[in-house]
Amino acid sequence: MLKPLADRVVIKMLESEETTKSGIILAGNAQEKPQIAEVLEVGPGKLVDGKEEKMLIKKGDKVVVNKYAGTEIKYEGQNLIIVKQDDILAIAD
Amino acid sequence: MLKPLADRVVIKMLESEETTKSGIILAGNAQEKPQIAEVLEVGPGKLVDGKEEKMLIKKGDKVVVNKYAGTEIKYEGQNLIIVKQDDILAIAD
Amino acid sequence: MLKPLADRVVIKMLESEETTKSGIILAGNAQEKPQIAEVLEVGPGKLVDGKEEKMLIKKGDKVVVNKYAGTEIKYEGQNLIIVKQDDILAIAD
Amino acid sequence: MLKPLADRVVIKMLESEETTKSGIILAGNAQEKPQIAEVLEVGPGKLVDGKEEKMLIKKGDKVVVNKYAGTEIKYEGQNLIIVKQDDILAIAD
Amino acid sequence: MLKPLADRVVIKMLESEETTKSGIILAGNAQEKPQIAEVLEVGPGKLVDGKEEKMLIKKGDKVVVNKYAGTEIKYEGQNLIIVKQDDILAIAD
Amino acid sequence: MLKPLADRVVIKMLESEETTKSGIILAGNAQEKPQIAEVLEVGPGKLVDGKEEKMLIKKGDKVVVNKYAGTEIKYEGQNLIIVKQDDILAIAD
Amino acid sequence: MLKPLADRVVIKMLESEETTKSGIILAGNAQEKPQIAEVLEVGPGKLVDGKEEKMLIKKGDKVVVNKYAGTEIKYEGQNLIIVKQDDILAIAD
Repeated sequence: MLKPLADRVVIKMLESEETTKSGIILAGNAQEKPQIAEVLEVGPGKLVDGKEEKMLIKKGDKVVVNKYAGTEIKYEGQNLIIVKQDDILAIAD
Repeated sequence: MLKPLADRVVIKMLESEETTKSGIILAGNAQEKPQIAEVLEVGPGKLVDGKEEKMLIKKGDKVVVNKYAGTEIKYEGQNLIIVKQDDILAIAD
Repeated sequence: MLKPLADRVVIKMLESEETTKSGIILAGNAQEKPQIAEVLEVGPGKLVDGKEEKMLIKKGDKVVVNKYAGTEIKYEGQNLIIVKQDDILAIAD
Repeated sequence: MLKPLADRVVIKMLESEETTKSGIILAGNAQEKPQIAEVLEVGPGKLVDGKEEKMLIKKGDKVVVNKYAGTEIKYEGQNLIIVKQDDILAIAD
Repeated sequence: MLKPLADRVVIKMLESEETTKSGIILAGNAQEKPQIAEVLEVGPGKLVDGKEEKMLIKKGDKVVVNKYAGTEIKYEGQNLIIVKQDDILAIAD
Repeated sequence: MLKPLADRVVIKMLESEETTKSGIILAGNAQEKPQIAEVLEVGPGKLVDGKEEKMLIKKGDKVVVNKYAGTEIKYEGQNLIIVKQDDILAIAD
Repeated sequence: MLKPLADRVVIKMLESEETTKSGIILAGNAQEKPQIAEVLEVGPGKLVDGKEEKMLIKKGDKVVVNKYAGTEIKYEGQNLIIVKQDDILAIAD
């Protein structure tokens, strides 16, 4: 299991098929290509004055992220990405 | 439904026709091309010292934004944009 | 009516004729070309620690601004500019 | 009259003749060419925590400034410059 | 022994073989190539208001880091890297 | 007399001859060429929360500075430089 | 003697021979070439809220530094470097 540090989050990009099923197709400009992903692991929060700041998202959330944000990692056969929470734009209910 | 995080806002650009009807035509310089948009969803506010800072705009507001600000997303057939509140310049009453 | 957010201000550049009448002709260097403008709308002030910081200018002020600052917008037949108060250098009495 | 905002200052560059008379000749490198100027108007001070920070210079001071700092403005026949106080390096007694 | 200062950490990149054994294969984009490493030494924490901020990782942790982060050093026959804790993305349990 | 503002300092570079006499010869890399100088005037200190922060150097100190730091000024026949205290690296006793 | 200001430190790079003796050989990438050095003089600490922040290293420490950090100075026949404490990565016991 990957335990992200601080305000980092482990996500898994959803396939276009899944994306379409939920009614969401993403198009981005050159700077930032958004995509939809599922949140697999959530860090404990960034340290602010020695306390962990509450995270805004939770495991299982479907979220909109910027495609080039974060770091790709292949883990137990899955293509995952570790991003900072600030690279997550919205939760897709 | 898209629930923007922190001080982000989901907007929908208004068509030129609509824009003209309300008497607003927008022209921008090369750096930033403003446009008018309608606010669809509003985040809870940026965390400042652990509290959410009050948002200055609300659902339904017509706002002036910079064209290249934010991230485009196609959602349930609509072309939407997720921007930070700071990219919204004014409310057009 | 345009209601600027935070510490933004809606201004209208004055014509050279008007500018000359008040005895002010502006010349700038390559980086920033100042011009004189009239303030039409004033935002409520930037949020600092949850409070709106008092604005230094008011409606009707004639001000010196940097030419390329802010965002142009055509509104009810007028060419307006939305700038942050910090792009206003001085009030011309 | 020009009333500079915040920590801005209106100055008038002194002619080489005047400069020489007071025994000061300025030479600068490529990055910043200092010059001597007279202070004509002084802003009320930058807002810090809602209070105006005391200005370090006053009307009539002869000051050393960086040549390319600030914004040139022609006003009532005079070539003036609006600079931030931080672009003023020293007072020449 | 190397004693890292502040929030720095001494790590040793794990061989691909080891990496595979633990089920983790890393792939990165051009900007940042993540790798997995073992933590050998941990600094006392960054000074914040005169106090050392608690470190989030400990000796022996397997961590995901960015390949080009930090400074390589050959020490007692080992190729080590000194990174700031902020360059460590996650702990791999 | 030049009265430097805030944390600025007026210095005079020492000739190579003088430099050698005190046993100090300076060599720099391309980025920053250090030199030794004598402190002629010291500002009152940078304003921090409305108070002047104590200066670390005093008139007459011999100091190591970066050659390209600050602004050259010719004053009463002397080639002087106005630098911020932070561009002074060390005092040479 | 050189008395470094604030959080600066005077160091002397150790010869490769010495470096090898202590079992440390350093290899760096293009961005930063680390080397090992001995600490000769330590500044009193950076001013934070008017107080000197405690230094983490002391005279005589053997430290890992980035090769291109700091400013070279030839002093009493020795090639010294003045660096900020933050450019020191670790203490080599």
